[in-house]
Amino acid sequence: MRELAGGYVERDWRTEVEGTVRFALIGIGWWTTDVAIPALESTELCRTTVLVSSSAEKAERAATDSGVEHGITYDEFHDGAAADAYDAVYIATPNAYHLEYVETAARLDKAVICEKPMEATVERAERLVETAEEHDVPLMVAYRMQTEPAVRRARRLIDDGFLGDPVQVYGNNSQPLLEMIPDPDQWRLDPDLVGYGTSVMDLGIYPINTARFLLRRDPVAVQARLSSSHDAFSDVPDERSSLLLHFEDDVHMVATSSQNAQRDSQLKITGTEGQIDLRPAFGGECALALTQGDVTVEAAHDSLDAGSEMELEFDYFADRVLGGAPIRPDGRHGLIDMRVIEAIHRADRTGGTVEL
Amino acid sequence: MRELAGGYVERDWRTEVEGTVRFALIGIGWWTTDVAIPALESTELCRTTVLVSSSAEKAERAATDSGVEHGITYDEFHDGAAADAYDAVYIATPNAYHLEYVETAARLDKAVICEKPMEATVERAERLVETAEEHDVPLMVAYRMQTEPAVRRARRLIDDGFLGDPVQVYGNNSQPLLEMIPDPDQWRLDPDLVGYGTSVMDLGIYPINTARFLLRRDPVAVQARLSSSHDAFSDVPDERSSLLLHFEDDVHMVATSSQNAQRDSQLKITGTEGQIDLRPAFGGECALALTQGDVTVEAAHDSLDAGSEMELEFDYFADRVLGGAPIRPDGRHGLIDMRVIEAIHRADRTGGTVEL
Repeated sequence: MRELAGGYVERDWRTEVEGTVRFALIGIGWWTTDVAIPALESTELCRTTVLVSSSAEKAERAATDSGVEHGITYDEFHDGAAADAYDAVYIATPNAYHLEYVETAARLDKAVICEKPMEATVERAERLVETAEEHDVPLMVAYRMQTEPAVRRARRLIDDGFLGDPVQVYGNNSQPLLEMIPDPDQWRLDPDLVGYGTSVMDLGIYPINTARFLLRRDPVAVQARLSSSHDAFSDVPDERSSLLLHFEDDVHMVATSSQNAQRDSQLKITGTEGQIDLRPAFGGECALALTQGDVTVEAAHDSLDAGSEMELEFDYFADRVLGGAPIRPDGRHGLIDMRVIEAIHRADRTGGTVEL
Repeated sequence: MRELAGGYVERDWRTEVEGTVRFALIGIGWWTTDVAIPALESTELCRTTVLVSSSAEKAERAATDSGVEHGITYDEFHDGAAADAYDAVYIATPNAYHLEYVETAARLDKAVICEKPMEATVERAERLVETAEEHDVPLMVAYRMQTEPAVRRARRLIDDGFLGDPVQVYGNNSQPLLEMIPDPDQWRLDPDLVGYGTSVMDLGIYPINTARFLLRRDPVAVQARLSSSHDAFSDVPDERSSLLLHFEDDVHMVATSSQNAQRDSQLKITGTEGQIDLRPAFGGECALALTQGDVTVEAAHDSLDAGSEMELEFDYFADRVLGGAPIRPDGRHGLIDMRVIEAIHRADRTGGTVEL
């Protein structure tokens, strides 16, 4: 057991390619400023050269503050401004704007790493994937858990049979959104910008996607209960959400998420022979506990904050772009989450089971 | 926080009554022999005077082994044998036999503590409750978590607002039944004896009932996914189960249970302001962790094994019987779990939501 729980290889995906991918960052919210920009500074293979925001002032101020060469507006980006200064775009705008930036990036022949969820609706996400495919540009969906070393270690253990047969999965991802961003008019609460809803799109997507990645299986049916009671959540159906997912090979999953609760994240997979528990799971400092029978071992490793997780994700993306190699998770992978989330919202409205 | 997490009062329910309640134990399986009999020996207020089993040999051998005065058969019990030697019965037979022993005990004017689930079906459980009421004998359902000191501490914290508003509950209770009892023909896998199924009736009932007790709220709607794949579970629908329960006041609950998985138990309640996590929760050694914001404190206490939990439960029951005071959890309380479990099995068959 102790041997199984030994140190991680942080960059088990790293090839021998060298070089630099220059990034335009689109959407300069707190995540980009506080997490993505510092993360890119720490990478081996990436450099930020362009910031793209709503106004010239905001873009230029952000560029100056961060020591980035170019600050341009959304309109200028669409017009091809500074196109020679970057090789790839990172899209971290509200969900409903992802497609238009992918369309321009694809037209300009830029590689794309796009935040999750991919778009506001399944139909727009499909157009996004098709756009990247038509222009033959690399597209990665920014599921940073898939390059998280603890998660990758867990996946190898599952591949090696540590759990026996997987039986049940539990996931939770909750946070107090209005304490983090004290604005009832923020985009995550606006159906036109966020899409189907807020807690599944923004939080529940973590346990769903990470379970898919760990188990190498996808959901085949969903049931759900979504509800909102706080005034700030009156336009979205899912201040809180409870999900029951049925995966391939009869693996069961239950999950909860909430945008108005004590912060907590956990992903626990129980099998016939063992259990893997990631807690915290999704907000940085990912910790892995392994149990078989009466023995539980905490895996030994340097835990990573969310920024360090982003650093690995960007370097993975750059490694694949520089090497011209396939990128996972790609657009087709992300589309499955979009279809699962749409099915979850439909299941809630009907009270029944939606097959996928 | 540290103050909140301080020591427990183990017997916060204890009154000043003194005396002894003499028990007949009905059903001499491993639970009774290994856990209940030693627990009763450790109590303040209880004494075992009669063991009731299938054959005279088995009953007498068990009585001799345990130093108990009387060992009688089920038939002798129904005929009133040794009725002067006990004041109360503890029923730990297969579920489908509970009713008949309650009928005899009630006729003999004995107090009853009956293992959970109360019976194999809602209809038989209703008859059980009505029988006790008609004969005016005390009836307690043996939910030992309700006298577990860590659980009672958690309940007082919730009453005092520690969680803010409760938002979401997660429960799991899983065990490798065939490793514990290596017999594919055991009663927990026989629908005639166990009732609706095995994992919800035997294991899922713990998180459901403990959540009801902690939140002082009941489920109002359920969704479920039950499945069996292992050969030994071919006669029951729920080798594994996943539940989605909607409680009063829009509290969500998800829960899993399995009779064929790594042992694990957890009950986690997340609110707008805090979180309470019991882990392990249901198999003894119950441990309580309290979180508000970024601070988590493990509650300090001597953890109790399942036998010590039974000791408290028996003494609580005896205290109430000796004092002639109302007993909680009573039969009406237990009936709600039976109705919830029946609704869960119905929800699984329809794939829809069953309102309660």
